[in-house]
Amino acid sequence: MRHMTTTSAGSGAARVRMSPESRREQLLDHGVRLLSSRPLDEVSIEVLAEEAGISRGLLYHYFGNKQDFHRAVVRRAVDDLIAITAPDGGDDLVGVLTRSLEAYVDYVVLNRPGYVSLVRAAAGGEEDLRKLYEEARASLTDRMFQRAGQDGITSLGYEDTPALRLMVRGWSALAESVVLAWTEDPHGMSKDDLLGALAGSLFGALDSAR
Amino acid sequence: MRHMTTTSAGSGAARVRMSPESRREQLLDHGVRLLSSRPLDEVSIEVLAEEAGISRGLLYHYFGNKQDFHRAVVRRAVDDLIAITAPDGGDDLVGVLTRSLEAYVDYVVLNRPGYVSLVRAAAGGEEDLRKLYEEARASLTDRMFQRAGQDGITSLGYEDTPALRLMVRGWSALAESVVLAWTEDPHGMSKDDLLGALAGSLFGALDSAR
Repeated sequence: MRHMTTTSAGSGAARVRMSPESRREQLLDHGVRLLSSRPLDEVSIEVLAEEAGISRGLLYHYFGNKQDFHRAVVRRAVDDLIAITAPDGGDDLVGVLTRSLEAYVDYVVLNRPGYVSLVRAAAGGEEDLRKLYEEARASLTDRMFQRAGQDGITSLGYEDTPALRLMVRGWSALAESVVLAWTEDPHGMSKDDLLGALAGSLFGALDSAR
Repeated sequence: MRHMTTTSAGSGAARVRMSPESRREQLLDHGVRLLSSRPLDEVSIEVLAEEAGISRGLLYHYFGNKQDFHRAVVRRAVDDLIAITAPDGGDDLVGVLTRSLEAYVDYVVLNRPGYVSLVRAAAGGEEDLRKLYEEARASLTDRMFQRAGQDGITSLGYEDTPALRLMVRGWSALAESVVLAWTEDPHGMSKDDLLGALAGSLFGALDSAR
């Protein structure tokens, strides 16, 4: 069965012909929206079925089981985060970094409950999710070294060494921790203060690895 | 029953008269030693009973249930870490910090399997353990602001603001992440390089919050 006819999710709109792949993508979008407002363990196939107005049976057909469903939702959420925070083509590398950080902060503000649960699940015992999130972290930090055919932070005179990459990974843990705390309590910092402190601490970490 | 007679743990030594409190402390020491070489979920009352050569019933008498036992072992491990890394009375604050960091690195090297599991359990879903570990992190970082009647890092000209404390907490996430990665793979850094990078990145984070 290559194509199927369904009603579009959660609305009274006309029936649309949609490939199973597109339908699955649409349902995943819906799962990720659910994750923005609640922790991962409350994003269930049952809740998605109710919200999307389709049968649980069909969802199990698309996603296999709860674990596979969670993995698919997390992978999508992580891909979204990587896309949203992608460095733009600006010339001023500090400006590029600051805009990327701002997109990250905005993402956490808008998706805090789900993001917190994702960080905890990834840091905790769930091996699959940890792997997924570690990959995301690696691509978030590694792209600082290369962007759009340019050299990233090495163009600022930093040598690309394992030690430098280690410190950048460490700084990403700092950024995650600071942004999670700031979104709970700003500690007297405006968003600009926060972005300045994050960028400043990155250069502090880079300088310390030389 | 204020006192009881037991054989001392795991040895063929003579019977010693020991208060229940001392005996419990001794068993906890044993639990913490077990934690140094294996993850927390493999530190069970059963394993401790076997290693210490005493009955499981008696251990349940001391520790209630598995969860209480884990909580007691983790609290002890965390107290040990706080004590081991306590700032000494030196005058040179950077030297004091570096020695404290070195004690932390040595602790992680010696206790890696248990420490990794502790960090994961604390970061993951286990609320009790997270709280315990968060308290530990708070006291590890907050004491940078006050030590032995002195002013800690504020004596270096940093103003003690919520923003500064936020960045110090963020830096502690960096340090934890970097030290865990370094003990797995040194990334071309000697221990001195590592300690220098950690101290340097702390001052980078402090400077960025001003």
